[in-house]
Amino acid sequence: MNIGPYSYEEYAKMVESFHGTLAPGLLIGGYMVDYAMKNLPEGEFFDSICETRTCLPDAVQLLTPCSVGNDWLKIFDFGKFAVTLYEKYNGEGVRVYLDVEKLKNWPEVNSWFFKLKPKKEQDSELLFSQIREAGHSVLSLQRVKVEPDKLMRKKGGSSAICPVCGEAYPAEHGDKCRSCAGESPFVSV
Amino acid sequence: MNIGPYSYEEYAKMVESFHGTLAPGLLIGGYMVDYAMKNLPEGEFFDSICETRTCLPDAVQLLTPCSVGNDWLKIFDFGKFAVTLYEKYNGEGVRVYLDVEKLKNWPEVNSWFFKLKPKKEQDSELLFSQIREAGHSVLSLQRVKVEPDKLMRKKGGSSAICPVCGEAYPAEHGDKCRSCAGESPFVSV
Repeated sequence: MNIGPYSYEEYAKMVESFHGTLAPGLLIGGYMVDYAMKNLPEGEFFDSICETRTCLPDAVQLLTPCSVGNDWLKIFDFGKFAVTLYEKYNGEGVRVYLDVEKLKNWPEVNSWFFKLKPKKEQDSELLFSQIREAGHSVLSLQRVKVEPDKLMRKKGGSSAICPVCGEAYPAEHGDKCRSCAGESPFVSV
Repeated sequence: MNIGPYSYEEYAKMVESFHGTLAPGLLIGGYMVDYAMKNLPEGEFFDSICETRTCLPDAVQLLTPCSVGNDWLKIFDFGKFAVTLYEKYNGEGVRVYLDVEKLKNWPEVNSWFFKLKPKKEQDSELLFSQIREAGHSVLSLQRVKVEPDKLMRKKGGSSAICPVCGEAYPAEHGDKCRSCAGESPFVSV
């Protein structure tokens, strides 16, 4: 089965180049995005939601025009393997998720997903062949509607210059930038 | 001036394909990532931090092996145009930021960045030519060290099945998944 407009081999090559490794989650993710795209409601422009930060966002970025940087892909950190494509104006969409009931038919995939055995005991070849054979059959699909107040992209407000670091930041964040307000990921050097 | 291993034209083409449009922020972002890569401290593996969700993450994803899905790119939502590449084990890195003092030398870029005039009054051709001519000269670079507790990637813990939706979620999130606990972006249909 193809993944989007690509053959399995073409997609696998794109994944390796973009993601660094052929991660099992990104293969399943490819089938998820493919399944969602084949069931889109009418509409011209689609935005997307990933309910996990792991792997899945890269499948969306490889197979759709949505990216993190263009803000057509939004990530909710729920740790759930689910992706939604929705019409950007009315919010009508399809949500595809990994269905744990259906997963039981594919023991090696199930065991990988639930981390039932140590990585070194995994049979990678079997895992990948089961993912490929399973395709859409481990997925379920729901019609959803995205909440109207999540639809609107916030327009950038005005900038201020942070009195501590001297860099520009969104004025609405307060009297200094969030980094200087204590959220910096850096230690002083 | 090249952007990473690419000519300006090659990079612009990649941006259009991945990001949808040739956004000014993604061109400046390309020069930022390029500048950081040319000043990396010693080390084999680099992770990255973007201090904004807008545009810049796509420059990192196009020019480095880091992506959102492989977790080598982390996004801090500070609304600051700054990117850091750092050695993943010791946290030594370089942070490149758009320097508002230096920006004053490039009026059309300055005016775009601070939204000083309505979009329709912008001179796009002049804007792009100034960005291209400016290259690294609107940027400043700092040596930084990433906080040790931001370095470690959290290993995935065990999964639970949500009693409400029946889907898998990280057990550490509590007795139901975050979506069913009230954070869902969907309305009931």
